[in-house]
Amino acid sequence: MIDHLDHVAVLVADLEAAVPYYRERLGLAVVTAEDLPEAGVRVAYLDLGGTLLQLVQPTRPGPIDDHLREYGEGLHHLCFAVRDLDDAAPRLADGDPGPVAKGGRDRRSCFLPQRPNGLHIELTELAPAPAR
Amino acid sequence: MIDHLDHVAVLVADLEAAVPYYRERLGLAVVTAEDLPEAGVRVAYLDLGGTLLQLVQPTRPGPIDDHLREYGEGLHHLCFAVRDLDDAAPRLADGDPGPVAKGGRDRRSCFLPQRPNGLHIELTELAPAPAR
Repeated sequence: MIDHLDHVAVLVADLEAAVPYYRERLGLAVVTAEDLPEAGVRVAYLDLGGTLLQLVQPTRPGPIDDHLREYGEGLHHLCFAVRDLDDAAPRLADGDPGPVAKGGRDRRSCFLPQRPNGLHIELTELAPAPAR
Repeated sequence: MIDHLDHVAVLVADLEAAVPYYRERLGLAVVTAEDLPEAGVRVAYLDLGGTLLQLVQPTRPGPIDDHLREYGEGLHHLCFAVRDLDDAAPRLADGDPGPVAKGGRDRRSCFLPQRPNGLHIELTELAPAPAR
């Protein structure tokens, strides 16, 4: 069902201020950085050797910004890569997985409504998507 | 400095109750499970394709149990694999990195005292350790 851990997301208040620690102290390479206006975030991806660290800064009021204000910076969610999102998401969500959107790196993705052990789980489809 | 993400840790109240979701619903293989009496935890590692998901249950009163009581279940820390812990830990800790202990899978590991962006970071040495 799950192919691998696509990324682990850390919520930050200021992306530009956060990146140097990971890039210069930890020596992680920045793979890409992008604005996701529909999600209301700006993200940077850093190479963790087979998976990615996603730093996420909210850019407008909404759930991500609310989370930052309430709980502060820190670990936010895990994103699992799946081969077929339309197959995996309803099965893992026990029904309607909620909206599928273009996430970072132009990947189709969605969040599961359940939070097993408090874990916020995103699914993203491996690109290119397999023929169906 | 960082070789790769060794594991991402999720704090759970009941390890035996938690494992089936990850093993049976998500289809992740359990790599190993072990008691770490010195750390006061029981852990299970699940294969995330190049990295591991570590489920952590506190087994006695202490900081991990306190965290669970105060914040509940959920994402707890990231563990980065390094080639030489005695070299990397003081550099990343800006001085004394605190105690180095045998962590899970018999690896030498330590936690950094700093929490950049609220992130609790563990370092673990790749095994076998390189000749020095």
